[in-house]
Amino acid sequence: MTPEKQAAPAGAATLPLPPMKWDAWGDPALARELSADIRGLLAAALGVTGDAAPGPAAAEVVLRPCALTPDDLAALAAVVGEAHLGTSDADRLPRAGGKSTPDLLRRRSRDPQDAPDAVVLPGGEEEIAALLALCAERRIAVVPFGGGTSVVGGLEPLRGEFAAVVSLDLRRLDGLLGLDPTSGEAVLGAGLTGPAAEALLAEHGLELGHYPQSFRYATVGGFAATRSSGQNSAGHGRFDEMVRGLRVVTPAGVLDLGRGPASAAGPDLRALFLGSEGTLGVITAVRVRVHPLPAARAHEAWSFPDFATGAQALRAVEQQGTGPTVIRLSDEAETMVNLAMTERIGGEPAAGGCLAVTVFEGTADQVAARHRLTRDALLAAGATSLGEAPALAWEHGRFDAPYLRDALLDAGALCETLETATDWRRLPGLRSAVTAALTAALPGALVLCHISHVYPTGASLYFTVVGALGEDPLERWAAAKRAAGDAIAAAGATITHHHAVGTDHRPWMAEEIGEVGVRVLRAVKAELDPAGILNPGKLIP
Amino acid sequence: MTPEKQAAPAGAATLPLPPMKWDAWGDPALARELSADIRGLLAAALGVTGDAAPGPAAAEVVLRPCALTPDDLAALAAVVGEAHLGTSDADRLPRAGGKSTPDLLRRRSRDPQDAPDAVVLPGGEEEIAALLALCAERRIAVVPFGGGTSVVGGLEPLRGEFAAVVSLDLRRLDGLLGLDPTSGEAVLGAGLTGPAAEALLAEHGLELGHYPQSFRYATVGGFAATRSSGQNSAGHGRFDEMVRGLRVVTPAGVLDLGRGPASAAGPDLRALFLGSEGTLGVITAVRVRVHPLPAARAHEAWSFPDFATGAQALRAVEQQGTGPTVIRLSDEAETMVNLAMTERIGGEPAAGGCLAVTVFEGTADQVAARHRLTRDALLAAGATSLGEAPALAWEHGRFDAPYLRDALLDAGALCETLETATDWRRLPGLRSAVTAALTAALPGALVLCHISHVYPTGASLYFTVVGALGEDPLERWAAAKRAAGDAIAAAGATITHHHAVGTDHRPWMAEEIGEVGVRVLRAVKAELDPAGILNPGKLIP
Repeated sequence: MTPEKQAAPAGAATLPLPPMKWDAWGDPALARELSADIRGLLAAALGVTGDAAPGPAAAEVVLRPCALTPDDLAALAAVVGEAHLGTSDADRLPRAGGKSTPDLLRRRSRDPQDAPDAVVLPGGEEEIAALLALCAERRIAVVPFGGGTSVVGGLEPLRGEFAAVVSLDLRRLDGLLGLDPTSGEAVLGAGLTGPAAEALLAEHGLELGHYPQSFRYATVGGFAATRSSGQNSAGHGRFDEMVRGLRVVTPAGVLDLGRGPASAAGPDLRALFLGSEGTLGVITAVRVRVHPLPAARAHEAWSFPDFATGAQALRAVEQQGTGPTVIRLSDEAETMVNLAMTERIGGEPAAGGCLAVTVFEGTADQVAARHRLTRDALLAAGATSLGEAPALAWEHGRFDAPYLRDALLDAGALCETLETATDWRRLPGLRSAVTAALTAALPGALVLCHISHVYPTGASLYFTVVGALGEDPLERWAAAKRAAGDAIAAAGATITHHHAVGTDHRPWMAEEIGEVGVRVLRAVKAELDPAGILNPGKLIP
Repeated sequence: MTPEKQAAPAGAATLPLPPMKWDAWGDPALARELSADIRGLLAAALGVTGDAAPGPAAAEVVLRPCALTPDDLAALAAVVGEAHLGTSDADRLPRAGGKSTPDLLRRRSRDPQDAPDAVVLPGGEEEIAALLALCAERRIAVVPFGGGTSVVGGLEPLRGEFAAVVSLDLRRLDGLLGLDPTSGEAVLGAGLTGPAAEALLAEHGLELGHYPQSFRYATVGGFAATRSSGQNSAGHGRFDEMVRGLRVVTPAGVLDLGRGPASAAGPDLRALFLGSEGTLGVITAVRVRVHPLPAARAHEAWSFPDFATGAQALRAVEQQGTGPTVIRLSDEAETMVNLAMTERIGGEPAAGGCLAVTVFEGTADQVAARHRLTRDALLAAGATSLGEAPALAWEHGRFDAPYLRDALLDAGALCETLETATDWRRLPGLRSAVTAALTAALPGALVLCHISHVYPTGASLYFTVVGALGEDPLERWAAAKRAAGDAIAAAGATITHHHAVGTDHRPWMAEEIGEVGVRVLRAVKAELDPAGILNPGKLIP
């Protein structure tokens, strides 16, 4: 990141900034330089040798002018207070989108960029309800905003049929609102980031244990609104499984859902809002399961001769319920590249095969038992132990891959990811089909894959593509994404395992849930948001 | 059960009968006689000495005449075939309701009884879709019917705004429609009873492992439509957690939901139909997780000095994840009565305290590990082992309690159950509040309670009430049920943990999910069933 990109943009910010940078992932201090090894690999494997043209500095970005009238702005300020309304370019630009590669490419444009017309930071549910009423009345679209980490276009400032759009940033809803250590439950404000939530819980010796790659920046409300899944979800479950209750402010009123640990009192309406991506209401607080901070941890990495053997082994572990907290398997290509890209490998020859990582957490007894049972199952299924070092190395860098993507983009390489899930039986075929689709759409690109999450009946596949940016990288990636999405749909797999829908997966939603399913979502939307102001153009086809 | 009750009712049955008897639980061969001990207990504790007046024989029951026109009946027959349309009293009476005590009391009435106007047995989805279209056009209500085991009024032949109602019996949808042993998934027809499904799976060495008390008669579709929970749910999860996919025929079209083992592709719409109780569509097939038949089993029973100590111990086991397949705890009153009522106890003095039962299943290794970890946790929390005999005895009679209820009813005693759930912290207060409400409403009645299901964050409470029938047992129970339901709602607990809503819990639904939640359900209903023919008067307020 060059210093001039850090300069204040035109119109000084009046609001606190989101945790993510406006044009790249995360914290500038954590930005990565590409090693000579990686540059060599890019040149040799992809023919990428010249850096990409640098994007504009923030101050050089030209934003679409604010479309709100002074009267609109006064009305918004009357709800949240002047101090919590931002209209400067410096306030708007950081909420202009998420962090997909298309988002980052758009941020690098010197053409006028789109952005929300204003940013509001409500202080609580009453203000959110008032904002929604005001925006419905004045016909202003609303994009709820958490950590800004969407990689599926979930934060695009789309206006739908309206003239203006505001970003509703939930960062002020950052409290630990309730704690019941006996039941192992905490009520968390939707605006808490992962680290902020964990810090509040750690004061009580407790942990949420949800660690998606976006952990450092994403928020509790975003985890819920997108059905997030984390790296420890093998042990602690997906975020939607952790949620015991939630509060949602909709234009039609407030919902407070979830009584008891389980219920048969009709359909579980929590499920309508988990994954609703801000289209049905604004999630303000989530009651989640928490557990004691782990007293013990263990790490072990494994090598399998090939992906199929490794997948079989992960299936055996998961179906036997031996309880690793983390378990993941890279395919041959990802294993090779990871080894090449990891600084500590240096000149060592790549080990080949497929790398798997396991981490175990809990009490010392639990860790010992889980580690032993998992080891037995993996060894019986053809694994060779690589010891703990590669697993520790994975853990050390577990949140850092997006920084590498930024550096690759600077170096002229397109690096993007997508994920899906299917049952164990169809997993090998799905991997082949998606790899083939991506390779055909991006000739010469590297297509890497790993099993990121396991379930008794199936697993997710997480693909990483690295290729040359080309002349028109946005269209180049769009074509690859279409090909991959079509291959996923044709295989009967889900269009997204944990990245959510946003704008980017919306074209496949009718296939995923059927025309009747789409009608159900539209009917719920019409009931709760009759004006249609909530996140138009996202999720619901 | 007296022999004349088995006589054929007026109008011979043309359809196969449901698995449940028309006026009592289950299989007549399994009916229980009350022991002298129990009769003594009834007399001593409740003052119940005289048998209840016997109800009518089936042939004596006067049913409300069929309200369908010959033209309606011809149209129904044209869809399902003459052989699958039943209009005789003998066809209608067994589908007249479920098996709650109010249902059984209504069956004992010599006044005209209500029943569906006809029974249809469709052979597949196309016929169901055609039936729904026909009923919407002709304005005929439809009550989907599985095993007939509802205890919440879910099968009452309510007509809503319509002149007639048909019972849509799903028994012909009884196939194993797909099996994927690799992924551990099976597709089961909605009309399969528990034993039929298990028999089909057992041919492949697999098990569903869902054992509610209604297991012998209830159906897979019913498990899904009511969010059933079983006695082994500690080990295998609730039924809604087992469901990976489902197919639903609605008047608006067919839904085929659930791709992959997990997804972030918007809200999980499966959750709208799990628990929909036939009000939104007809579930025709369910894709569920299955697992190998257990190779090993172990049983152990425990005694705790009091309920609070036992509850703490169950919480420790569940929060540590030590993995029993079954774990349940009776309170002091239930422990005393169980000991008194179990034939094998004979003249032995009651042991006092609170009885807990654990069962472990899996491979031999898993069972040994789970048993050891659970034993350690229970002993550390104050348990005394009672050995395996009481646990085996519990398991032997696990599905038989409803037969005892029938025998009690014959003997002039009202015996009914209800259940709820809350977090661990509020569990003791909830038990006290519901016990107090039931005791106040039914002075002199025995109120027994057990923890039937455990979760990391809370547990269910299952209450059994035994009292004198009194002059007006229907109103007597209704008043007690109102008092208990109000106490549950006031405590913030769920109105039903696994019995579902039907008619009986509908008055508390607005409290449970809020007015906005009710509006959501109504909006979905209006979209999928615009004519409102599906199970009117159930679930949705």
